[in-house]
Amino acid sequence: MLETSVDFKEIFLYGKRLFLTSDQCTLHDFPENIAVIRQEGLHSRKLKPSDTTVTVDKVNIGRGGLVIAAGPCAVESEDQMLEIAEKVKRLGADMLRGGAFKPRTTPYSFQGLGKNGITILKQAREITGLPVVTEMMDIADYEAFDNVDMIQIGSRNAQNFSLLKFLGSRNRPVLFKNGMANTISEWLSSAEYLLSGGNEKVVLCYRGTRGFDNATRFNMDSGVIPALRERTHLPICADPSHPAGDRKYVEAIALASVAAGADMLEIEVHNDPDSALSDSKQQLTFMEFEKLVRNARKVADILGSRTA
Amino acid sequence: MLETSVDFKEIFLYGKRLFLTSDQCTLHDFPENIAVIRQEGLHSRKLKPSDTTVTVDKVNIGRGGLVIAAGPCAVESEDQMLEIAEKVKRLGADMLRGGAFKPRTTPYSFQGLGKNGITILKQAREITGLPVVTEMMDIADYEAFDNVDMIQIGSRNAQNFSLLKFLGSRNRPVLFKNGMANTISEWLSSAEYLLSGGNEKVVLCYRGTRGFDNATRFNMDSGVIPALRERTHLPICADPSHPAGDRKYVEAIALASVAAGADMLEIEVHNDPDSALSDSKQQLTFMEFEKLVRNARKVADILGSRTA
Amino acid sequence: MLETSVDFKEIFLYGKRLFLTSDQCTLHDFPENIAVIRQEGLHSRKLKPSDTTVTVDKVNIGRGGLVIAAGPCAVESEDQMLEIAEKVKRLGADMLRGGAFKPRTTPYSFQGLGKNGITILKQAREITGLPVVTEMMDIADYEAFDNVDMIQIGSRNAQNFSLLKFLGSRNRPVLFKNGMANTISEWLSSAEYLLSGGNEKVVLCYRGTRGFDNATRFNMDSGVIPALRERTHLPICADPSHPAGDRKYVEAIALASVAAGADMLEIEVHNDPDSALSDSKQQLTFMEFEKLVRNARKVADILGSRTA
Amino acid sequence: MLETSVDFKEIFLYGKRLFLTSDQCTLHDFPENIAVIRQEGLHSRKLKPSDTTVTVDKVNIGRGGLVIAAGPCAVESEDQMLEIAEKVKRLGADMLRGGAFKPRTTPYSFQGLGKNGITILKQAREITGLPVVTEMMDIADYEAFDNVDMIQIGSRNAQNFSLLKFLGSRNRPVLFKNGMANTISEWLSSAEYLLSGGNEKVVLCYRGTRGFDNATRFNMDSGVIPALRERTHLPICADPSHPAGDRKYVEAIALASVAAGADMLEIEVHNDPDSALSDSKQQLTFMEFEKLVRNARKVADILGSRTA
Repeated sequence: MLETSVDFKEIFLYGKRLFLTSDQCTLHDFPENIAVIRQEGLHSRKLKPSDTTVTVDKVNIGRGGLVIAAGPCAVESEDQMLEIAEKVKRLGADMLRGGAFKPRTTPYSFQGLGKNGITILKQAREITGLPVVTEMMDIADYEAFDNVDMIQIGSRNAQNFSLLKFLGSRNRPVLFKNGMANTISEWLSSAEYLLSGGNEKVVLCYRGTRGFDNATRFNMDSGVIPALRERTHLPICADPSHPAGDRKYVEAIALASVAAGADMLEIEVHNDPDSALSDSKQQLTFMEFEKLVRNARKVADILGSRTA
Repeated sequence: MLETSVDFKEIFLYGKRLFLTSDQCTLHDFPENIAVIRQEGLHSRKLKPSDTTVTVDKVNIGRGGLVIAAGPCAVESEDQMLEIAEKVKRLGADMLRGGAFKPRTTPYSFQGLGKNGITILKQAREITGLPVVTEMMDIADYEAFDNVDMIQIGSRNAQNFSLLKFLGSRNRPVLFKNGMANTISEWLSSAEYLLSGGNEKVVLCYRGTRGFDNATRFNMDSGVIPALRERTHLPICADPSHPAGDRKYVEAIALASVAAGADMLEIEVHNDPDSALSDSKQQLTFMEFEKLVRNARKVADILGSRTA
Repeated sequence: MLETSVDFKEIFLYGKRLFLTSDQCTLHDFPENIAVIRQEGLHSRKLKPSDTTVTVDKVNIGRGGLVIAAGPCAVESEDQMLEIAEKVKRLGADMLRGGAFKPRTTPYSFQGLGKNGITILKQAREITGLPVVTEMMDIADYEAFDNVDMIQIGSRNAQNFSLLKFLGSRNRPVLFKNGMANTISEWLSSAEYLLSGGNEKVVLCYRGTRGFDNATRFNMDSGVIPALRERTHLPICADPSHPAGDRKYVEAIALASVAAGADMLEIEVHNDPDSALSDSKQQLTFMEFEKLVRNARKVADILGSRTA
Repeated sequence: MLETSVDFKEIFLYGKRLFLTSDQCTLHDFPENIAVIRQEGLHSRKLKPSDTTVTVDKVNIGRGGLVIAAGPCAVESEDQMLEIAEKVKRLGADMLRGGAFKPRTTPYSFQGLGKNGITILKQAREITGLPVVTEMMDIADYEAFDNVDMIQIGSRNAQNFSLLKFLGSRNRPVLFKNGMANTISEWLSSAEYLLSGGNEKVVLCYRGTRGFDNATRFNMDSGVIPALRERTHLPICADPSHPAGDRKYVEAIALASVAAGADMLEIEVHNDPDSALSDSKQQLTFMEFEKLVRNARKVADILGSRTA
C-alpha cells in the first residue's frame, strides 16, 4: 500500500525493510517497527548504530582486522601485474588493486589498458586467490567488470550521480572515494545514491582533499576518520598514496590513517616505480611496502585492544 | 602516413589540420606549416593567438558583446518555464537556461523533470526564439538533447572524462564549468578531452571554487578570468548565481565578472524564487534581473572601449 | 553608575554613547536610547545602519566617490619614492602608499628602510599634498608613525590582537587588511579590537585569501565585498596587487573590485617594476596605472548612478 | 673581517660558526669548513643532517621518546590549574600547558588572567616539578615570562615577525605553531626569524590549517609531519586539540600524529571541560587523557623500533 505511493520507496537494507519517504511524511504515518529514513540518511549511525562489515570474496572489511589492498597505479602489462600481485600477496596484502580504466588529468597521458587491463587483473586474481578492486568510470564499460570483486569509484566521479545510481542498483561491493572538494556531509549524501538503490556493500575510501600547499599532493586530514566513524556505520578505507604524492611520505600517512581508525588501506606498489607509466613518484617499492605492512599491522593491533 | 601511426592523431580544428603527437616527437618530424600540439594543448593561445567565437544558433559568444543566458535553476513546469522565458527575453536575455536533469547533492532532493523538462525547454525556445542551454549528466540521456542548442557540463562532472570524450566527438556547443577544486591548469586539461575529439565549440564557464568561508557559497576569484584570458583563446562565461548562494550578492558578482573580462553571464532567475524547488535563495526576481542586465551592459560597454 | 561596573565599558563612537556589556546583560538593564552592543558588534549595520565615512586628511573614504591610493610596494630611496609620488598624483591618485617596515616571508629578504622610509614618505606627502598610508608591524615603532595619515595593518598581523588593541586606543585612521585564512566573521571580530577601544576610523581592506591554485597568488572572491557591505557600515577598500601576483591581472581584479562595490583601491605602482626590491612582478608601470585609473573611475561612475 | 661587512652576519648555532650571507655571495668567498647558509636556511637538513634535540628543563624534545604537554586551554584559577597539573602529571604528562594571555577571536571573550595566570603556572611548576609552556602575544609582556620554561608562539602570530625577531634574540625554548594558511615552506621561513637571531631552541608545533569542511575545526594533514621531517632537523610537536574542535576526535588525531612521526603532543585537558571559559568542547576529561596517553605511548614504542 505504502509502496505504491509516489512519495515512498521501499528498500531492503541491513536485513531490514525500510521506507524512504518525502519530507512531509512523519513517523506516525508508518506501521511500527519499520525504520523510516531520509533526514539522516541510510549511512547514519542513528539508523543503524552497529558497524557494517562489507565482505569482498572472503575478505571482511570492517571487522576489526586491517585489510590491505595493494598493487600498481595502472595495469601496464601481464608481466608487470603478475609479478606485483604475487609479491604483494607474499608481503601480506589481502586484496589486489590496479587501474585498467584510468581517469587522467589530460587526454594525452596514458589512459590505461581498458578491458585488457581487467583481463590481466582476473589472471592475477586466479593465480593469487586475492580479490581484486579496480576503478570504473563509465556505465558503458560495466560488462567488463563482471568478475571484478570490488568496483572503485574515483575522486573525479565522486559526484557523478548517474554512475552512483547505476551501481546503487547492482549488488556489487563498491570502494567509494571522496571528491577533492567534498565535505564529509556531501560525501555521505553521495553515498546515499548507492545505498538508496539497495546496495549496502559500500566502503568509504578517504584519499584527502585539496589544500593550498604543494609540499604534499592532497590534505590527508586525520580528523576525517573519527568524524566519519561518529556519523556512519560504513567501513572506512584510507588511500595514503595519492595525498602523499611522494613515496617518502606514504608510510607515515598510512600509519596515521590506521592510528586514526581506518579499517582498510589501499596502497600503490610497483615492481619498478621509476619506470611506471603513471604516478611514478608515489608508488612504493616492495621493500617499502613490506615495512609499511609490518608497522601498519602493529598499529592496528594496538587499536584493536583500544576499542576492546 | 603520419596519420596511420598509433602515436599520432590528426584532427581538424580552428580551420587547420593539426597533429596530436606523443611526447617523444619533435617538431622536425613533421612537414612544415602544420601545427603540432600537445605540450601546450589545443586550448592554448600559443597554438591559436586570436580569440575564438562560439556561435550558438544566432548568438556569438566571444565577439566582444556581452551574452546573457537566464532562466530558472530547474524547469519545474510548463507554466513556470514559459513565463520566465518570455520575461527574461523582454528584460534583455540572449539565451535561456533551465535544468532538466539536475545533479543534486542528495538523492532525496528534487531531481528535475528529465526528458519532460527538455520538451518544455524546446517550447520556450520556439516561443521566444532564444537558444537554450541545459545540463547533461549521462551519456545515456544524449538523445533527449537533440534540439538543445548548447549542452552544459556541470561542476560535478568537470572531470567525468567519459562524458567529456563523448561530447568531444560530437560537434555541439558546450558550456563547460570548472570543478570545485580544479586549478585553472586542470580545467584547461579537461577541456582538451573536448577539443582533442575535434569539437571546438567550447565556452568555459567559471562558477567559483570551494573556499573556507560560508559567508558565500563558493569563492568567485576575479583573478581567474584574466588568468584564463592569458592562457586560452576560448570564450569565458561566468555564473554568479552559484558562488553567491544568496540573491543579495548576485549582481555584485555578475558586474565584477564582466569587469574582469567575462564574455557571457549565466544567471538564475525565477518567477517566484521563494517557492523554487531548488536553489531558492539565489535565484533572482525579474526586477533584480532587470537591474543586473542594465548595469552589466554598461560595464561591458566600458570594457569594450577598453580593449579597443 | 553603570560605568563603574566591571562588566560594562562605556565608549563614544559614531557620535553616540554606547555600552559594551557582558553576555548576561539584557537591554532593560540600561537607560533608554542608549545602544548596547556585543552580540552583533560595533561593526554591525544592525547597530548603525548608515554607511560610515572615514576622513584621512581631506580625503573621504566611503562617500560614494572612488578613492585610489598608489605607490611602490616598498620605499626604496628618496628618488624612487618622490618620482613615483609625483607621477601617480598626476595620474589621478588620491593617496600615497609605500612600505617602510616590510613584513617579509624570510628574514633574508629586503626588510624595508624603516624610520628612514617614513621620513621619505613625509617628504612625498609635503611635495604632493597627498595623504600617506603605510604599514605598522610593531608597537615599539609607533613614534615613527607620528605624521603618517593612515596606518595599515597587514594581513600577517590581522589577528595580532595586541597591535589591534593598541591602535584601537589611538584615534588614527587604520587601513585594516584581512588575514589570509580569516572568514569575514573573524575579520569583523578582529575589527572589534579597534572599534571597542573607541577608534571608529577603520577602513577594511580586502586583499584576498589563500586558495589552492598558483595561477594567481591569492583568491580575490568578488562575493566578499557585497557580503561585507551587508554586514558592516565600515568603508571597504580592495588591494588587487597582492592577489594578482602578476601585473597582467591587476587591472581586471581592480575593476572587478570596484564593480563589486569597493569604495577604495590600493595599488602598487613602481617607476621601474622589474628592478623593484620586492613584489617586482605585480607592481604596475605608470602607463598601466593610468589605464587602470581611467577605467576604474568609469566603472565607479556607473555604480554611483546604480546606488542612487 | 667578514663579520664587519654589512652583507654578512656571523652567528653561533648548533655548535658551529655560521655566516648568513647575501644572495650575491658565493661559497669561495669564505674560508673552508665554514657553513654558509641562506638559500636553504638554518632549519634545513642540508645544513644540519642530524635531528636537533631541544631541552626544556630536564625534558628532551626530539630524542625519540614521546613528550606530552597537557593542561587547560586557559588558566582560570589557582584551584583549577593546580588540580589539573597534579592530575595530568600522575597520568603521565611530561610538561604543563595553560594559557595566561589568550588570543581570542573577539575582544568580548575571556582574555585570560594575564600575569596572574603566569604566577599560577609557576606555582603548578613548583608543585609538580614539570616545566611549563605558555603563549606570549606581546613583547611588552616579556618580563612576565621570566620563569616560564618554554614560550609558545600561537597560530595568529605565526607571521608576527617583530615578535619572532625578539624571541630569536633571546635564548629561550620556543614552541612555534604554524599559521592557519601557511605553507610548510612559509612556516620554515618564519622559523628563520628565530634561528637567525641565534636561538636554536625551536620546536615546530603543527596545529592544522584552514579547510573547507566544518566537520572538524582545522585540517590536520598527516602528510605534513613526514614532509617537515624531510626538510628540517627541528623537533616536531602536534596539537590535536585545536584541529579536532571536539573532544571525541582528539585521541584519533593524537595517535595519527604520533604514528606520522611527531616527537611531542600538546593536549588540552580540563577538570570540568563543559564549564571551561574557552574551547570547552575540545578539552579532554582526565579519563580521556589517561586513555590517550596509554595508546599514544604504545604507538610511539612501535615507531621507536621502526626508526631503529
